[in-house]
Amino acid sequence: MLEKSNILKYKHLGIHTQNEYVVYMREDCHVCISEGFEALTRIRVSNLKTSTVASLHMITSEVLLQGEIGLSDTAAEKLRVTGGETLYVSHLEPIDSLSHVRAKIYNQKLDYSAFSEIITDIVEGDYSNIHLSAFITACAGDRMDIDEISDLTKAMIASGKQLDWKKEIVVDKHCIGGLPGNRTTPIVVAIVAAYGLTMPKTSSRAITSPAGTADTMEVLTDVTLSAEKIREVVEMEGGCIVWGGSAQLSPADDILIKVEKALDIDSEGQLIASVLSKKAAAGSTHVVIDIPVGETAKVRTPKMARQLKEHMETVGEAVGLKVKVVITDGTQPVGKGIGPTLEAIDVLSVLKNEENAPNDLKERAVLLAGEILELSEKVESGKGSTTARQLLKSGNAYEKFLAICKAQGRFSQPVLAPYTVEIKAEKSGALKRIDNRKIAKLAKLSGAPQSKSAGILLNVHLNDEIEKGQLLYTLYAESQGELNYALEYYENHYDIISIE
Amino acid sequence: MLEKSNILKYKHLGIHTQNEYVVYMREDCHVCISEGFEALTRIRVSNLKTSTVASLHMITSEVLLQGEIGLSDTAAEKLRVTGGETLYVSHLEPIDSLSHVRAKIYNQKLDYSAFSEIITDIVEGDYSNIHLSAFITACAGDRMDIDEISDLTKAMIASGKQLDWKKEIVVDKHCIGGLPGNRTTPIVVAIVAAYGLTMPKTSSRAITSPAGTADTMEVLTDVTLSAEKIREVVEMEGGCIVWGGSAQLSPADDILIKVEKALDIDSEGQLIASVLSKKAAAGSTHVVIDIPVGETAKVRTPKMARQLKEHMETVGEAVGLKVKVVITDGTQPVGKGIGPTLEAIDVLSVLKNEENAPNDLKERAVLLAGEILELSEKVESGKGSTTARQLLKSGNAYEKFLAICKAQGRFSQPVLAPYTVEIKAEKSGALKRIDNRKIAKLAKLSGAPQSKSAGILLNVHLNDEIEKGQLLYTLYAESQGELNYALEYYENHYDIISIE
Repeated sequence: MLEKSNILKYKHLGIHTQNEYVVYMREDCHVCISEGFEALTRIRVSNLKTSTVASLHMITSEVLLQGEIGLSDTAAEKLRVTGGETLYVSHLEPIDSLSHVRAKIYNQKLDYSAFSEIITDIVEGDYSNIHLSAFITACAGDRMDIDEISDLTKAMIASGKQLDWKKEIVVDKHCIGGLPGNRTTPIVVAIVAAYGLTMPKTSSRAITSPAGTADTMEVLTDVTLSAEKIREVVEMEGGCIVWGGSAQLSPADDILIKVEKALDIDSEGQLIASVLSKKAAAGSTHVVIDIPVGETAKVRTPKMARQLKEHMETVGEAVGLKVKVVITDGTQPVGKGIGPTLEAIDVLSVLKNEENAPNDLKERAVLLAGEILELSEKVESGKGSTTARQLLKSGNAYEKFLAICKAQGRFSQPVLAPYTVEIKAEKSGALKRIDNRKIAKLAKLSGAPQSKSAGILLNVHLNDEIEKGQLLYTLYAESQGELNYALEYYENHYDIISIE
Repeated sequence: MLEKSNILKYKHLGIHTQNEYVVYMREDCHVCISEGFEALTRIRVSNLKTSTVASLHMITSEVLLQGEIGLSDTAAEKLRVTGGETLYVSHLEPIDSLSHVRAKIYNQKLDYSAFSEIITDIVEGDYSNIHLSAFITACAGDRMDIDEISDLTKAMIASGKQLDWKKEIVVDKHCIGGLPGNRTTPIVVAIVAAYGLTMPKTSSRAITSPAGTADTMEVLTDVTLSAEKIREVVEMEGGCIVWGGSAQLSPADDILIKVEKALDIDSEGQLIASVLSKKAAAGSTHVVIDIPVGETAKVRTPKMARQLKEHMETVGEAVGLKVKVVITDGTQPVGKGIGPTLEAIDVLSVLKNEENAPNDLKERAVLLAGEILELSEKVESGKGSTTARQLLKSGNAYEKFLAICKAQGRFSQPVLAPYTVEIKAEKSGALKRIDNRKIAKLAKLSGAPQSKSAGILLNVHLNDEIEKGQLLYTLYAESQGELNYALEYYENHYDIISIE
């Protein structure tokens, strides 16, 4: 079935196209003519060893000569070509799993095998952004029931590597975000590992927030570790705090999360599948999940939190995890810093027992570490918090944290961003409200999380009595442009912090 | 707010990126660093006159030098740059209408102003494929009620040009596809215009079928006409048969339809909005809609057809159109040809009253033309078909058709594709079933509609008594590769035509 016109020579163009694989072909080539370019065409590109699906972009200049073909950098990487190799192009056979996506769009219930086919094709790179977005949207807005969420979670676990720590108890934690600055994880891992439990923590990068745990930890140490390296770190120190994506744990999650970010949505089903698939694939057995509740947190009402708690625990059981959900206060940011570097500074400050360390961050970390110690049944019920507090106060947790960072590759001191503006109170009164979403937006506009040292250093808390002219917070940015952009948003939104 | 690093010189790269605008920047440029490349980043690119939103692709070679910026061909066209011009890049301000898309994902009802904001931003090019797909999916599967469909339709009408023919009665027709070869439109327009009514017909290209009316007409004449040119043709001949997209009527529809095609879905709400917005924007007042019903047609059951009829007529009234829906037989393909050229041959054959002209196509055209004549109240109820038949038989309709083609720019004779295979019956028996979807797929795999002369020439009908070895149909393709691809599908699907 191969025609001469479908055999082409690879030329390296050096174009990195976000997440979708792209193939570049001349407008006068056979494929551009026969497949029809305007139809959002996708084709299969192969060498003798492997193949990939790619979206067709058409070259209308002499960037490619007759008989040449180009690939986006990641597609070339997948096919392991660098220049001069022979490639074959062919029609894209229908992607069968898309019939399940269409069924879901029409409100039909999917089973494990349907989710499994979808997730396998997603990991293979066969879905375009259009297909990924349709899948995410069709599953969002409470359109998956608990069986479907369980089946999706199982399919996501099976899609990548699965770690086995050869331990009876492997603990983990997760926080359902939405609370800027709530960076308890590094402290909790340090306490729990210092106690002697195994806690191999894999974290996501930010989806819609100014920093994820992986972003924050990357300020202090390496977080992009192979599965083998993670095993070394955990065997040596009992814990780690790494980025989950690099370990190929639930790789479908990493693909879906980028599209969810572009859509700026987190649906309950995808959220549960995302969190629990990462946990199960990472080999965890006992997991504590923190759901902060507040008007402007990700979970807004106690009712929603209770439903999420119930679903999380049910799906956990279905995939073989012991899950305990803790519902916490989510009415204001935690700690002082918002943004990777500023949050890393808070974390170190708590671990070092510094006098001005943020007390709210410390108390949350102690609570969660205590819950984990109790869930593991190694510490008697009711004594978790006390044990955690002692490990923190003694310096054992800090020592353990430094050891983990070094085992992961380095320990670096955080460095603040060079461009700053102080935002001061324009009137006196009581601090009545901090809008988590708007302050997170402000931190994102200043550059976080991509600009690691960008963000906000918060100087006040709910119910503080504020004097006119008092420093409310400092904006940090890595360039004047980003700082200006954040300031523009500040000037148009007077209700980020409300004083009455 | 403009930094030096955001001012760049445009270099023409010659890359045509399907429908999404793309901006190319070096990996070491300010924007790639500060916006974060992995986040499916979109930025704004401006010159002094206008601006556009584009997805960022990163150049990792010397294709661009320091200080240079590239654009995909259509984005360059929008900004009217050819090379050497100064461009400015800036952060993308949040796209406010996406909050309505998110609300719809979460099952909230949208009103006219929400749809209007969404459609305006879509036409402006501000939505990525991810956003378009989410909007389509969130509105699919019966998730819009009748008010929402009306409001979406109105928003789509308002998004483009609206023609006013200064006539009391302007008639139109539309067929809810799914029936291969059902190319009545050119015949109906010819009959109705020959009668003296005004029928400015704008048609879509194929969404998921092997040919749309615009694809078929393009074989015979020009269909990409400006609004001004369409007016000329209609004033001269009383009718036209053109592609709707080029006339900027309901331009949002043309963008949405490509993404729907990639998803291979047609949802009821989008379908109604698509059809009626085109009709209303084209200045029609009286519209006949043909819904073929059959197991493998687009509308599968009489119940679905009756619901669609009711919704179509209700939405029609809401947007000021007099709509009559005719439910017809959709159990098998119509005519002999499937594919643009082969269907064009059928159309000419009926118009020329040729002896072997497909009778089913002729009877359908006469029925629909009769319904239009009666809906207009120019012809007495019950006498529409007879009048239509006379206009066809007399040659008046053919004469009118040739005049319309010439007014649109040319009349070309259709030319058959060079590569053919005859498919013969493997046993004797009665022809029990023709799978519309599978035979359409076969025609598509042979190259239709992009390869205009590709497709299928069908030699048999339902309930025919077939002899073993009798010719069932001929496959036509423009290349051996496409023919082989269709044959591969044929060999794996013995139930395209069932003989028992």
